[in-house]
Amino acid sequence: MGKNSKKYVYLFGKSVCDGNAGMKNLLGGKGANLAEMAKLGLPVPPGFTITTECCADYFASGMRFPSGLAGQLRLALDNVERQTGLGFGDRDRPLLLSCRSGARSSMPGMMETVLNIGLTTATIPGMIKMTGNNERFVYDAYRRLIMMYSDVVMEKAAGIVPADGEGIRRKLDLRLEALKRRRHAGTDAELKAGDLKALCEEFKSIVAAELGRPFPDDAREQLEGGVDAVFKSWNGPKAVSYRRIENIPDDWGTAVNVQTMVFGNTGNDSATGVAFTRDPATGDNRFYGEWLANAQGEDVVAGVRTPNPLNSGCRNPHAPDLPTLEAEMPEIYRELVAIRNKLERHYRDMLDIEFTIQHKKLYMLQCRVGKRGGAAALKMAVDMMEEKLINAKTAVLRVSPAQLDELLHPILDPAAEKSAAASGRFFADGLPAGPGGAVGEIVFSSSAAKAAAAAGRPCILVREETNPEDVEGMRAASGILTARGGMTSHAALVCRGWGKCCVAGAGELAIDETAQTVSNAAGKTFKAGDFLSLNGSSGRVYCGALATVSRGDNRDFKTFMKTADKFRKLAVRANADTPEDAKLAIKLGASGIGLFRTEHMFYGNNSEKPLFALRKMILSRTDAERRTAIDELFPYVKAAIKNTLKVMKGLPVTIRFLDPPLHEFVPHDAGQQKELADAIGIGIEEVRRRAELLKECNPMMGHRGVRLGITFPAITAMQTKAVLESAAELAADGIKCRPELMIPVTCDPKELVDQKKIIAETADEVRRKSGLKKLEFKVGTMIEVPRAALLAGEMAVEAEFFSFGTNDLTQLTFGFSRDDAGSFLNRYLASGILAEDPFRTVDTGGVGLLIRHAVKAGRKTRPKLKTGICGEQGGEAETIKFCHELGLDYVSCSPFRVPPARLAAAQAAIKKKK
Amino acid sequence: MGKNSKKYVYLFGKSVCDGNAGMKNLLGGKGANLAEMAKLGLPVPPGFTITTECCADYFASGMRFPSGLAGQLRLALDNVERQTGLGFGDRDRPLLLSCRSGARSSMPGMMETVLNIGLTTATIPGMIKMTGNNERFVYDAYRRLIMMYSDVVMEKAAGIVPADGEGIRRKLDLRLEALKRRRHAGTDAELKAGDLKALCEEFKSIVAAELGRPFPDDAREQLEGGVDAVFKSWNGPKAVSYRRIENIPDDWGTAVNVQTMVFGNTGNDSATGVAFTRDPATGDNRFYGEWLANAQGEDVVAGVRTPNPLNSGCRNPHAPDLPTLEAEMPEIYRELVAIRNKLERHYRDMLDIEFTIQHKKLYMLQCRVGKRGGAAALKMAVDMMEEKLINAKTAVLRVSPAQLDELLHPILDPAAEKSAAASGRFFADGLPAGPGGAVGEIVFSSSAAKAAAAAGRPCILVREETNPEDVEGMRAASGILTARGGMTSHAALVCRGWGKCCVAGAGELAIDETAQTVSNAAGKTFKAGDFLSLNGSSGRVYCGALATVSRGDNRDFKTFMKTADKFRKLAVRANADTPEDAKLAIKLGASGIGLFRTEHMFYGNNSEKPLFALRKMILSRTDAERRTAIDELFPYVKAAIKNTLKVMKGLPVTIRFLDPPLHEFVPHDAGQQKELADAIGIGIEEVRRRAELLKECNPMMGHRGVRLGITFPAITAMQTKAVLESAAELAADGIKCRPELMIPVTCDPKELVDQKKIIAETADEVRRKSGLKKLEFKVGTMIEVPRAALLAGEMAVEAEFFSFGTNDLTQLTFGFSRDDAGSFLNRYLASGILAEDPFRTVDTGGVGLLIRHAVKAGRKTRPKLKTGICGEQGGEAETIKFCHELGLDYVSCSPFRVPPARLAAAQAAIKKKK
Repeated sequence: MGKNSKKYVYLFGKSVCDGNAGMKNLLGGKGANLAEMAKLGLPVPPGFTITTECCADYFASGMRFPSGLAGQLRLALDNVERQTGLGFGDRDRPLLLSCRSGARSSMPGMMETVLNIGLTTATIPGMIKMTGNNERFVYDAYRRLIMMYSDVVMEKAAGIVPADGEGIRRKLDLRLEALKRRRHAGTDAELKAGDLKALCEEFKSIVAAELGRPFPDDAREQLEGGVDAVFKSWNGPKAVSYRRIENIPDDWGTAVNVQTMVFGNTGNDSATGVAFTRDPATGDNRFYGEWLANAQGEDVVAGVRTPNPLNSGCRNPHAPDLPTLEAEMPEIYRELVAIRNKLERHYRDMLDIEFTIQHKKLYMLQCRVGKRGGAAALKMAVDMMEEKLINAKTAVLRVSPAQLDELLHPILDPAAEKSAAASGRFFADGLPAGPGGAVGEIVFSSSAAKAAAAAGRPCILVREETNPEDVEGMRAASGILTARGGMTSHAALVCRGWGKCCVAGAGELAIDETAQTVSNAAGKTFKAGDFLSLNGSSGRVYCGALATVSRGDNRDFKTFMKTADKFRKLAVRANADTPEDAKLAIKLGASGIGLFRTEHMFYGNNSEKPLFALRKMILSRTDAERRTAIDELFPYVKAAIKNTLKVMKGLPVTIRFLDPPLHEFVPHDAGQQKELADAIGIGIEEVRRRAELLKECNPMMGHRGVRLGITFPAITAMQTKAVLESAAELAADGIKCRPELMIPVTCDPKELVDQKKIIAETADEVRRKSGLKKLEFKVGTMIEVPRAALLAGEMAVEAEFFSFGTNDLTQLTFGFSRDDAGSFLNRYLASGILAEDPFRTVDTGGVGLLIRHAVKAGRKTRPKLKTGICGEQGGEAETIKFCHELGLDYVSCSPFRVPPARLAAAQAAIKKKK
Repeated sequence: MGKNSKKYVYLFGKSVCDGNAGMKNLLGGKGANLAEMAKLGLPVPPGFTITTECCADYFASGMRFPSGLAGQLRLALDNVERQTGLGFGDRDRPLLLSCRSGARSSMPGMMETVLNIGLTTATIPGMIKMTGNNERFVYDAYRRLIMMYSDVVMEKAAGIVPADGEGIRRKLDLRLEALKRRRHAGTDAELKAGDLKALCEEFKSIVAAELGRPFPDDAREQLEGGVDAVFKSWNGPKAVSYRRIENIPDDWGTAVNVQTMVFGNTGNDSATGVAFTRDPATGDNRFYGEWLANAQGEDVVAGVRTPNPLNSGCRNPHAPDLPTLEAEMPEIYRELVAIRNKLERHYRDMLDIEFTIQHKKLYMLQCRVGKRGGAAALKMAVDMMEEKLINAKTAVLRVSPAQLDELLHPILDPAAEKSAAASGRFFADGLPAGPGGAVGEIVFSSSAAKAAAAAGRPCILVREETNPEDVEGMRAASGILTARGGMTSHAALVCRGWGKCCVAGAGELAIDETAQTVSNAAGKTFKAGDFLSLNGSSGRVYCGALATVSRGDNRDFKTFMKTADKFRKLAVRANADTPEDAKLAIKLGASGIGLFRTEHMFYGNNSEKPLFALRKMILSRTDAERRTAIDELFPYVKAAIKNTLKVMKGLPVTIRFLDPPLHEFVPHDAGQQKELADAIGIGIEEVRRRAELLKECNPMMGHRGVRLGITFPAITAMQTKAVLESAAELAADGIKCRPELMIPVTCDPKELVDQKKIIAETADEVRRKSGLKKLEFKVGTMIEVPRAALLAGEMAVEAEFFSFGTNDLTQLTFGFSRDDAGSFLNRYLASGILAEDPFRTVDTGGVGLLIRHAVKAGRKTRPKLKTGICGEQGGEAETIKFCHELGLDYVSCSPFRVPPARLAAAQAAIKKKK
């Protein structure tokens, strides 16, 4: 196809309409929807859209208009002129145009707009005549054109950088302000026609002087400048950085919408407004919007005047007297309601619309699918499904897993947050490490947190970073704030697991535990007892106590989840380590426990005694010492497992054997060391020496997981006994159990052979003692070491199931220590070396390759091999999609992430079918 | 084939000979060689071999003789009887037999033997008559039979465990000793026939009483018992544990050799001896051996009597008067020399032979390829090649890389070591972490080591574990001994790199630096200044100063290496970090440098100033601070690189950019911290704070390698500039350079894109400044992170070469921290979970899979991709074989390992062709 044959311009209007809503890529969102509305017969001011392809060609040819464009523009203008009966540049009935950007996906405020194009010294008189001699209105429009045009086209698009750092816009604004002062005018509206006319002349001479060329007095020149400026604004600094953040490709380009101007500010029979077809905050099925009489659209957006409610239903109770459109212009309001109904039926979604009323005539200027919060998204999806507006599949796709996640946690009141930010009460920025919001007094230690909580005072635990000894305090606190550590630091892992609000790695904070103070980079300092508010979903921290809002689950939630579950193929299990977590998991719809971490019983409440026994075991040097400690530990381990199995009533429970490096549990304070020394019967120096021996250079790759089980077989035997005795006793009570013993950190099938021997011997013993003939359980392994994934075919000879431990697998595959990656990972993400944080979303290209290989090789050996994923990423939507595509049997995530995971799994199934 | 049709028994002897030397798997080594000697017409006492297959069937059928065996045994016995003219169990001319084990590969002393089978009350009179009425000889033989048989067959093979813990052998021995005391006899030989006869009767009644059944008085019963006992001894505890250590499969089984007895103890015209066809210690082409008149073979081996030299050439100068066989029995000696020549010509190798002379008649009892040390192996290989006894290929295969390695280091005198061990001067056992031997006085600090070395006193640096701050002391010391750390600890890595003697991880040692003492588990304590001797090849440490011996290279070495190089396909480069190392590398035959570690200039001699500048750079927090430090560092880095490139004269030099975690270089002592604080212009507290910030939980997976280059691009630019300016300046001086810039620790191709941009910019700058048109260099990457291997196809888009860093790749693929693996790796190896230490030999099954994939995918993208391996395993023979099979271009190892690596590469090429 030759260059000239490309169609660059698409018309929209009553008579001709080249585009439709499906052509967003070519026409941008705004252009496609304008065409669609016009097609529906709605009152759209006629105009045309210059394609995104034209924008791309424009940049490809060194920022010149492609050769076919000029001719197509001319024809399009002709068409608009015919439809409106006006003429562009015509002295008697001049046509005025707007020129707006419109990319594929909305980039609000990031690109440029020019309005009132077509006003020149030649057309102004005709315009005045046409508006019934409203000279003031026309010169006000002319002033606006000069201000916008000189700024957008003549300065920015021309690449002029003002020598004094002040742009032309600012200079003209100062003149306008000066004029208002001279006239004692509070608003622009108080200025007279003559003042404005003189101001326009002054503006034009300033523009010519500052920018070195006169303000163009030719309609076509103005239009071409406008189009060129909109194209150029695609590569403006704001737009470019927005695209970086939103991952929008640079080569998409923007479309340009050129449209007949309509004016909502031509008198009290004119107005402008924005509306949502349903309430975007609650999702309620009621028409919701705001309007202003005798105003331009920008006046509503800018907030200069307080807008009025569209109807009595969306009145603000604090301002019950504001006039509604419904009451003021009942006929037009009815027309608008009809349009609203038509659009919703047509688009089958909640829409965000913009309209203008010019001399009692309604015009539609924009419509697009409206943004909404989680609660609203859920309500609308369920309502529209029940209204039969959409089918179940569409309803399920209408709520994102992140929105669902939002719903399950209380949050800081967005309004309170906004006003805190505006009034300088922002304190620090960190990583969004645990969901929701939290407000409380500052405490600096685990014990202070416990004390505050016991006294019924909500508190925020502020720590350099947390460690297992802090866990009780973390449980007690309302939220956690750390100065160090990333998205997978101890604090983040624990808090996400609990669904507790956490802001981690707020690097600018300086914490002085001795002085009991925390300061930010600006030197603002708080002491223990002062209040902070955390937004764990954004990572922002505010001074003082902000209000919070809470959204529970409800009927809609249940309906929605039930609908989603119909499509889901992947089972969703929970990571749960206590009977309480297990109950919560079941409540949130988990179909089993995918990860019960034996060691977590040493972190939680009532962990003192088992932790003490564990420490004794760890510090044992002789078999006799170790045996004693293990015997002491056994009842605690068994109780935790038995109670959890009991709650799960026959649902599968995967119990991971002791995993972490032992030194994590060694006490550091002298009191506890002394107590241990006495209990073992050794000196405190010996305790310290033994603790020293346990220290490792790289504990993540040290003596942990199955390596403990192999060097200390009694630990494996004890855990097996705890699980199987529990199962046997529950079976005797008629309660079914499906325990799955999971061996962590394996790298070789022979490790499994070794451990299975111990398990089999223990199982025989339990069977013998219990008198049970059958004692069903499975033995499988975590696949979290690259070698285990590589040897998956051989691992599956021994393992009945694989559970991919994506945290460690990611660490080892990348060679990234998640505790240390903070020092470089941000830089990797910022510079685009990595597109995603691999600890958040599974790295499908690298780690995913290993998983894919392991699943394939494992199933080749054992066709019925059960496969799942556990670890942080198990609850993340993209990862779940990947797991669905791989055909895994389940994902497992923390209980609070179960509903979003169920949704993500349903969406993956629906999208794959499509 | 039915069971009965299996051939279980193979005859050997003058008339019939079913086997040959090629049948070791079936007949065992001894049986196959007996057959071969018989075939060659040598005087082998006739007999037969029961196959290893029969042994396997014996165990498969619950330790019963397979059904065909009895008949075949009968026929074989008939044949032996025919050849010897004797009869088994015959009253007049009784045939006596020996019954010996013989596995595929020698398991010396691990299995059982029974001699003199066939002596019964019925045959003794005939035997006495046959030996010229030598009643004493016959009863002595009978006594030996009873002692051996009751022990081996009646007790051990029957599974009898003596209640009092004392075996039958010991009980009989005590009776023999008591008799000797009664007769005032110093040796057995002084006992009279009557005494021995009575002793035999006493023995028989003790046997019957203790073992519950009478000593068998039937020849055939004795034989069957003997065969059964030899089979059973395959699964005796000694044999089983030997097989574990030597990796011999359990299902091989042993053959049994049944052979006509000949006696070297029938008078002074009888004798016995062992000999080597060449000197096994030196490799000299001279017949070497020992003999004893009137003795049995076991007397030579047991060392009860001092053996005599075979000929004047192998006399011990300290005992010049001992009688030689050459002089005492010249005719037989000549016969033996003829046999020696025949065997060497036939086997084309040095053989270890055993012979017996009975009444002036020579019998050959055994021949096998003789064991030899490295020096001897080399000499024999070269000599035999020059004698045209073997071809070049065979010569190259005759020396193992380990033997060659041995040759390149001085060692403790083996004799001195033996006597030190015997006299209780053994001190401790550790890991053989650096080759050769070292003797010196104990020092406990780097500074003491330097002081001792400066004073010309060799010293052993004894440390808990070493770190980079010890490196100067390590250089200065003769040997290093550490209490902690494994084969890849800092000490081991540095020492192997330098070829310096090191014993690492001697865990039993308690080092008290304050008291300046080191104690072993037995409480033996040495202080600074006391002497220790280390064997870095075995890991043994001795008290006091032992003698050392040194073997340099020589003409044979050069001839041998030249021969090996003819077959080699794989290039061998060296890991070298200084011009001195580079010179050594060239001397030892390296064809380039495969790994120049920039950071090693901060470890070595004269490292103070660059290390100081590096520390400044590391502790910089602002760009300005960092820039200053980098500028200061630059001249040192450039000098080190330039001087190395100069030495290498156009050979490729791979320069790896700064790799290790920065905190490794942070000083810990207050003095150095103060100096740094002053230099940077900050307080010492600030230095400590910054050092604290650099600490990582898992430094191995932290902020290192390319991650430094990405976060601090100036570091990459500085190194690039150092390399390319050096190359440009050398080129201007007419010296060719082939620098290869290697980016370490990569995990994504975009990292290379980022770094190559900096490199290209720097290269342009250097080109511009130097005025050179061409400035050739390559840019490649280490593949040491699993993800880099997985994405190799994409990595190769950017990288011109891959160098597999097997140390880190192994760590990450297994999830084993080499610094910490000591706590479990030994257990993994001991229990057979891992067959090999993966840090020593590349793990072909797991890590190898990644390497194989990476080579294939990389070459698909870039067919000329250069591939190599660096890291410890690069010098290891099995790894080299793997690299050859993969078709890599080169391996790189420390300079001292270059010759063994060249040899291993040649052997891999030869073996693959075969």
